[in-house]
Amino acid sequence: MTTDNGQLDQFNDSFLRACAGERTTPVPVWFMRQAGRYMPEYQAVRGKHDFLTMCKRPELAAEVTIQPVDILGVDAAILFSDILIPLEAMGAGLSFQEGRGPVLSPPIRSRQQFQELHGIDPYEDLPFVMEAIRMLRKELEGRVPLIGFAGAPFTLASYLIEGGTTKSFVNIKRMAFEDPKLFHDLMSLITGVTIDYLTAQAEAGAQALQLFDTWAGVLGRADYEAFALPYAKRIVQALKQQNIPFIYFVFNGGHLIDLVKSAGADVMALDWRTDIAHATGHLGSDIVVQGNLDPAALFLPEDELRQRISRILQQGRGAKAHIFNLGHGIMPEIPVEKVKMAVDLAHQLSA
Amino acid sequence: MTTDNGQLDQFNDSFLRACAGERTTPVPVWFMRQAGRYMPEYQAVRGKHDFLTMCKRPELAAEVTIQPVDILGVDAAILFSDILIPLEAMGAGLSFQEGRGPVLSPPIRSRQQFQELHGIDPYEDLPFVMEAIRMLRKELEGRVPLIGFAGAPFTLASYLIEGGTTKSFVNIKRMAFEDPKLFHDLMSLITGVTIDYLTAQAEAGAQALQLFDTWAGVLGRADYEAFALPYAKRIVQALKQQNIPFIYFVFNGGHLIDLVKSAGADVMALDWRTDIAHATGHLGSDIVVQGNLDPAALFLPEDELRQRISRILQQGRGAKAHIFNLGHGIMPEIPVEKVKMAVDLAHQLSA
Repeated sequence: MTTDNGQLDQFNDSFLRACAGERTTPVPVWFMRQAGRYMPEYQAVRGKHDFLTMCKRPELAAEVTIQPVDILGVDAAILFSDILIPLEAMGAGLSFQEGRGPVLSPPIRSRQQFQELHGIDPYEDLPFVMEAIRMLRKELEGRVPLIGFAGAPFTLASYLIEGGTTKSFVNIKRMAFEDPKLFHDLMSLITGVTIDYLTAQAEAGAQALQLFDTWAGVLGRADYEAFALPYAKRIVQALKQQNIPFIYFVFNGGHLIDLVKSAGADVMALDWRTDIAHATGHLGSDIVVQGNLDPAALFLPEDELRQRISRILQQGRGAKAHIFNLGHGIMPEIPVEKVKMAVDLAHQLSA
Repeated sequence: MTTDNGQLDQFNDSFLRACAGERTTPVPVWFMRQAGRYMPEYQAVRGKHDFLTMCKRPELAAEVTIQPVDILGVDAAILFSDILIPLEAMGAGLSFQEGRGPVLSPPIRSRQQFQELHGIDPYEDLPFVMEAIRMLRKELEGRVPLIGFAGAPFTLASYLIEGGTTKSFVNIKRMAFEDPKLFHDLMSLITGVTIDYLTAQAEAGAQALQLFDTWAGVLGRADYEAFALPYAKRIVQALKQQNIPFIYFVFNGGHLIDLVKSAGADVMALDWRTDIAHATGHLGSDIVVQGNLDPAALFLPEDELRQRISRILQQGRGAKAHIFNLGHGIMPEIPVEKVKMAVDLAHQLSA
């Protein structure tokens, strides 16, 4: 794109360079759920359309994807979408109910229910995602890279099997333990879909990919190794031929970091419970880390917020490269000024 | 108590000896929520009374407390009650809604709301708890020890501030970060109540105490140290004069184990995500550990269940002493035969 005075904007590639292992000055910054409810400009769009419509209409998804780039000055855009979108294309019933979160109905708990699900052709079944990516690449050209994403198989399976969110994960674990064949068949199907989906995103123009394993942290080490890791690994491997950076995020996965590393992603994203210094202490300094401010820390007064960000940046210097982020998505209750302040502080303190 | 043939039953003190650091053969076994919905005998009582009534009528609480001792052959009884019971005595509105869990109304989010809360006299305000303990000591005499318990301050504060269960803990963290004075005042009040409550339980005859910090694991290390640990420590210290074993359980606290140890409890309880070998590797072998089978592992077929229990027992031999338990409460969906099987396996494999 061109600026008002006719010059070409310089492409801000600090995020991509950090993904590739370069220690950048300043560190790149983006936030999970940076396009979201905390932002009045997002609410203005959301007030007119329901959540799924926003995911499915490329011009709306593109509009809110760009908002944080304009308003916060982040160094990467992440496609506005939801990890559950491909499940609907697989034949699952998906709805979002106000105050209750996503509902998958009926939950998949039998071989017969599993057989109602099927693979997808992302271009055919989810054309709006690829269209949003193409639109965004045009609109973002000359500014920041665009990240695509998907949910990891264990996380998607947990929504399918539990029928929504859960605290106990009793049904997914029960299937894994009582009927491992069915569980693994379901995981294989989801894995194939996810590979196809992320490949299509890359082909449409996504410049990096993040795999969200929000719930794999409920597994002990042996179970993560048996029931979640092999599928994440398969996805990471399959996407290597796209030659774009791959970020793997296991939420609440501090007890799994060595296994998570073995998945082979370029970047390991950490939540706020796993100190970056702990990760580099255990895994060595040859890792690229992303994270990891507690999203609630954005409620802190400026002085304390600065101290926390400074500490995280300092720990990040012990890694091969560092991408500053939160340890989870921005909460709707956070004032947008504080989010902007965190972006600025992370830039200033690492300049 | 006397058996049918007139002999005194031998008091099974293996749990108390293990708490004191003795390596017992076999290891003692009890399960969190061993008196609970998975058991038909419990359901028979629950079918006639609501949950709070069961907590408040000593003869009902005593009846279901003893059920797992009779039916499972566990080595300790734990008082049937709920960690939220003292909050009601402090002036909070408490109800249990089917399918929604506990509701605390109104949530405590202002100084004014905090000032509606007050300390308790456990003998005056919660006489049914002490009465249940006295009844149980009589009924259990000659069999197994009785464990009393309370929720840890951070966990109780999270229910008070959030108004029930939560996934984000946004309100409690917001108060801690935006109004630390109010947060610490609330924590101090809860801590005093908890000390009084546990002291009364010990005086009434509880032979060990467990402090449940179900939600402190949502804190990063620095925040756990600032906002949760000092209060847990104060409780552990205050209860030392009762000269009974004290167990501290931080759920999902693998990233905090060294700090958790510093609270000074006699026994550290671990969930299934923190391998006992990891704990002894980091903290040394001079710890008494309790745990840590994934409750969902009770869905496994016998062979695999045996392997898992065997592995946990083997890791437990690396500690000073070991009490076998689950890493969280028994799920209602677990068949009672599998729970019994786990008790028997843990006994057999450590005999």
